[in-house]
Amino acid sequence: MSGGGEWWQCPCPLESVPRVRVCDPKLLDFIREQRPIVITDSKLVESARHWDLEYMEKHMGDCKFTVYESKERVFMFSDEEKNLGNYKFTPTATKRSMTFQEFASEFREAMKSKDKFLYLQQGLNDTVGPTIVKDFVGFNWTWLTDVVKALNWGHLTTNMLFVSMPHLVTPCHYDEQENFFAQVRGTKRVILFHPDNFRCLYPYRYGHPCDRQSQVDFDNPDYERFPKFKDARGLEAILRPGDVLYIPRCWWHLVRSLDELSVSVNFWYMSPPAIAEDIRFPLTASQKVAMMRNIEQMLLTALGSAGEVSDFLRMLVSGRYDTDANHTFRQLEM
Amino acid sequence: MSGGGEWWQCPCPLESVPRVRVCDPKLLDFIREQRPIVITDSKLVESARHWDLEYMEKHMGDCKFTVYESKERVFMFSDEEKNLGNYKFTPTATKRSMTFQEFASEFREAMKSKDKFLYLQQGLNDTVGPTIVKDFVGFNWTWLTDVVKALNWGHLTTNMLFVSMPHLVTPCHYDEQENFFAQVRGTKRVILFHPDNFRCLYPYRYGHPCDRQSQVDFDNPDYERFPKFKDARGLEAILRPGDVLYIPRCWWHLVRSLDELSVSVNFWYMSPPAIAEDIRFPLTASQKVAMMRNIEQMLLTALGSAGEVSDFLRMLVSGRYDTDANHTFRQLEM
Ligand SMILES: [Zn+2]
Ligand SMILES: [Zn+2]
Repeated sequence: MSGGGEWWQCPCPLESVPRVRVCDPKLLDFIREQRPIVITDSKLVESARHWDLEYMEKHMGDCKFTVYESKERVFMFSDEEKNLGNYKFTPTATKRSMTFQEFASEFREAMKSKDKFLYLQQGLNDTVGPTIVKDFVGFNWTWLTDVVKALNWGHLTTNMLFVSMPHLVTPCHYDEQENFFAQVRGTKRVILFHPDNFRCLYPYRYGHPCDRQSQVDFDNPDYERFPKFKDARGLEAILRPGDVLYIPRCWWHLVRSLDELSVSVNFWYMSPPAIAEDIRFPLTASQKVAMMRNIEQMLLTALGSAGEVSDFLRMLVSGRYDTDANHTFRQLEM
Repeated sequence: MSGGGEWWQCPCPLESVPRVRVCDPKLLDFIREQRPIVITDSKLVESARHWDLEYMEKHMGDCKFTVYESKERVFMFSDEEKNLGNYKFTPTATKRSMTFQEFASEFREAMKSKDKFLYLQQGLNDTVGPTIVKDFVGFNWTWLTDVVKALNWGHLTTNMLFVSMPHLVTPCHYDEQENFFAQVRGTKRVILFHPDNFRCLYPYRYGHPCDRQSQVDFDNPDYERFPKFKDARGLEAILRPGDVLYIPRCWWHLVRSLDELSVSVNFWYMSPPAIAEDIRFPLTASQKVAMMRNIEQMLLTALGSAGEVSDFLRMLVSGRYDTDANHTFRQLEM
């Protein structure tokens, strides 16, 4: 169960994400190898360290923010517009739009009444008030730009602002971009899984509103439906203000805010452009995930319905690829 | 078991393929709808009705023919050159090359000694002797050309000549072309299955030397490995000299020669070119088979080995497409 303040026990064995300083030469090596790392002293969001509810309420301006409201602490993201498979699905969280002032007032009320939970998740843009823009411009872009250049990444796509009540949970999912996740205020616990845990985490199908989310309920795993979940092996990071976590593309992550108000800002970047020569055998787990998504998308388009895709894939696999009997292979001659 | 002369009992329920005369208007309708039919009076191979072992021995010339030799009556076709998946596989039949005279002499010997079986399967070409060429030119091309034109088929790719000892079996497989299968001498029993029996017949994987062959041993079906084989529903045709069976593309067929020497000639045609407007929901079973083969081929190329393809497909399907739990769909609004 995902209750209040007690320490949540993850059902999977966890190791720690290494923590490094910006001067550590391991930093770029880790990122190049697509391994998560916490950077402790980048001062990336130092100019936002004073962002608390009162300050943001005063300076965010009149623009509208996306706020999810739920009776539960677990906020499963879903996108009804991406329900290409026409799945029946009722989200547990309601998506609302409000000014930061409205959010702050509902936030304080909900902290007292304890009858609902609120999670603000909004891409930052230039409609926020001038003081916030100034803080934003004051981010350590110099350091970030140097790193991104050294990594040959593509462009910055979004800065998401996350403002969360204590003890809220973003369940396990993966994104398709490179992510620097910067903790501004409060503490977050992030649990990560390498993309090769795909088979252990059973994502919803492409075309489902919960696409890229694990179907496994970490608070009550159904080991019968998802037997390989017991093989999942994760990493864990505790992020305190000033910490920046690198979440490589296609790495699974589950995020839990701890005791207080939590404020985070992320930096989503496009991966470096794929160059044909970089494609080597065996493909990386993240390349396989991309291939899998392309096949699912193609089939949904070609076959016209999610039921047909399911039927087609079962026909393709059943008695043919789900067993290795009579399918032993010769050693490849090198 | 596939023994000698007794009537073989197919493990699947069978209905009869309709028999029609060339003047029957149903003929073209059936073919357009890709339904098997036996044409009884086309006189397509009338000019070859005198082809027996002695005549062919005398007139086939010195060119070489492909002859399969086996200790068993079941001749599973396999193509080691198409073993892209590098599967371990030992064919039961040996592929040999010999003149028709050599074949005829071994044939007579084997009929006496009963220690081996021979099956000649060779695409006809203009290296055969002039008398045979004359018989070939005498086929009823006028009728055939009219039908093919009316159907908008592509070009004739091959005329296979089949010369078989009694009681030999070509196990269940499908081909990717339109086929007129003409019986010249002796009797053949052909059992056919609609392409939507794919899930019941479990073809070997693309890239296996037995690609397009059913993995199910019809003489001893393994219902545990291939549970849906019990749902297969077939059609049956007995072909006597002069009969021409239309085998639509992707229809499964199993062919058994009966009591005597059996001589057949087939006519393989390319399907009509696919026109984008012809592609409608739901796709036909044969379009799905083509799509499936493309995906298997693409994955084998992209992933580099059959083991990786198997692993990839299991990852794609397991806990995601192999169950419909939590995946009910909304009714499509029309
Ligand atoms: Zn995320
Ligand atoms: Zn065939």
